[in-house]
Amino acid sequence: MSDRQLILTFIGGDARQVEAMNMASKDGFIVKAIGFKDITNANIKLYKDLDEECFNCHALILPIPYKNRHGYINITYDSQSITLEQVMEKVDPSTIIILGKADNDIRQLAEKKNLHLFDILEEETFAILNAIPTAEGAIQRAMEKTDITLHGANVLVLGYGRIGKCLARMLKGIGSRVTVEARKPEDLAWIYENGYNGVHIDELDSILGSQQVIFNTIPYLVLTRERLEKVNKEAVIIDLASAPGGTDFEAAKELGIRAYLELGLPGIVAPKTAGRIVYRVIKEVLERAQKLGIIRGLKA
Amino acid sequence: MSDRQLILTFIGGDARQVEAMNMASKDGFIVKAIGFKDITNANIKLYKDLDEECFNCHALILPIPYKNRHGYINITYDSQSITLEQVMEKVDPSTIIILGKADNDIRQLAEKKNLHLFDILEEETFAILNAIPTAEGAIQRAMEKTDITLHGANVLVLGYGRIGKCLARMLKGIGSRVTVEARKPEDLAWIYENGYNGVHIDELDSILGSQQVIFNTIPYLVLTRERLEKVNKEAVIIDLASAPGGTDFEAAKELGIRAYLELGLPGIVAPKTAGRIVYRVIKEVLERAQKLGIIRGLKA
Repeated sequence: MSDRQLILTFIGGDARQVEAMNMASKDGFIVKAIGFKDITNANIKLYKDLDEECFNCHALILPIPYKNRHGYINITYDSQSITLEQVMEKVDPSTIIILGKADNDIRQLAEKKNLHLFDILEEETFAILNAIPTAEGAIQRAMEKTDITLHGANVLVLGYGRIGKCLARMLKGIGSRVTVEARKPEDLAWIYENGYNGVHIDELDSILGSQQVIFNTIPYLVLTRERLEKVNKEAVIIDLASAPGGTDFEAAKELGIRAYLELGLPGIVAPKTAGRIVYRVIKEVLERAQKLGIIRGLKA
Repeated sequence: MSDRQLILTFIGGDARQVEAMNMASKDGFIVKAIGFKDITNANIKLYKDLDEECFNCHALILPIPYKNRHGYINITYDSQSITLEQVMEKVDPSTIIILGKADNDIRQLAEKKNLHLFDILEEETFAILNAIPTAEGAIQRAMEKTDITLHGANVLVLGYGRIGKCLARMLKGIGSRVTVEARKPEDLAWIYENGYNGVHIDELDSILGSQQVIFNTIPYLVLTRERLEKVNKEAVIIDLASAPGGTDFEAAKELGIRAYLELGLPGIVAPKTAGRIVYRVIKEVLERAQKLGIIRGLKA
């Protein structure tokens, strides 16, 4: 980026946004923040309320996901309740909005004001980079939940998307006996090329009994009661697929199989790395917006 | 082993001995046990006291280390206090003793009775195999103690012995940027061959500032106050060298560097795997003792 004197305003978020703000400030951006309590970085200007001044910015960065379960802006470090409407009312049309998990509410409000929205969760870079702390976090959880080493263990990875690829590679690096389930013939060919044991979903049942740790990345019910009945009782299941996961957790409980739905691992096990990823994607989005000419001058 | 009907008596120990007993029983050994509370395996005969009958065995297996810090036999699962003398008084001279951390006390008593002692901790197989859960446990701890991923992090491994080798390989497999410190030119050549960044101890100071996680395996004071002053304040040190470790922990504390002495990781993070390793070494010792003709017939 040629011009680093862009102004970024962060409204809410968690440790990831704190790290992203620190990096942005270090990189020469002017950073304003709302919804944080203690900002130790003197270069970041902290606002208590939705001050007009904080809307004088080139990009507004909302949390990932931008809404909490009560429907307010997802603020972790302060007790403020800010609504999307309050934000959108004050935002200047010259500002771009970068956020996580855009829904119809924000899309409609943005369209009305002719605002440009960028959803971090829809950025391929984010999805790939975020697979790393997700996979590493899953490995940490598996280490914590088992009384065996992953080294030498039979581990099964369900799905060969971004997380599955990263998980399989790391597990092999630790010394696990890695089996990966996939459906596409080309995925199974890559799985073979990487030296993993490949299994088509139709043949899954035959290997379930010998697996000691099962990682699921498939976002639909793949570990059904029928399949769980074939799983070793001492196995541990780490389910990474977005809620409600891909495991029949009730059946798992009844069968005495330990199964854990682990969501949002990057922010939990490696907030700093996760924050750096968020920042990298924000920068990519800003560069793209500049190239497209949609970052405009400020009012003042 | 041709004759599996050997009788093994386990006196005390932890989860590793429980796993070893279960495996031994499954393999056809006759297993007797003292110093355990709840043994779910019906094939293992549990004795409440040092019954004469439990000394009717081919091998007596003591804990690792065999003594606790009060000088008694190291019993985890029962409140009994058994002394070495009580055991050695009753043990039959035809029995071999397999234990961890033999000291002069047991060596002298064994010599008096002409008993064969085998120290598991002195078995090379044990040292190599035990490096695996030690390294994996160290990685688990590093994941838990940091807010970054090990993937992409600058990690330093001090020492290239069994644990150093295993650690470096696993860390590289996860995706860390691995630097290994060694002194011998041939070690540094192997370190290069493996694709790690190698550094001689004399050049250590120049790279300390850029490391995010430091694993120490060297059993003498290597992380001195002088060196710690060059370490990044946000770095985490995982020290695996036997007590008191290779870190000046007082200096680390004063400098605000988080440093952890992690001992006995295999039994803590992967007791089942650690137990299997113990069993594998016990079997090796028994086979060797049979070949040497020092496992004799029983009295009864």
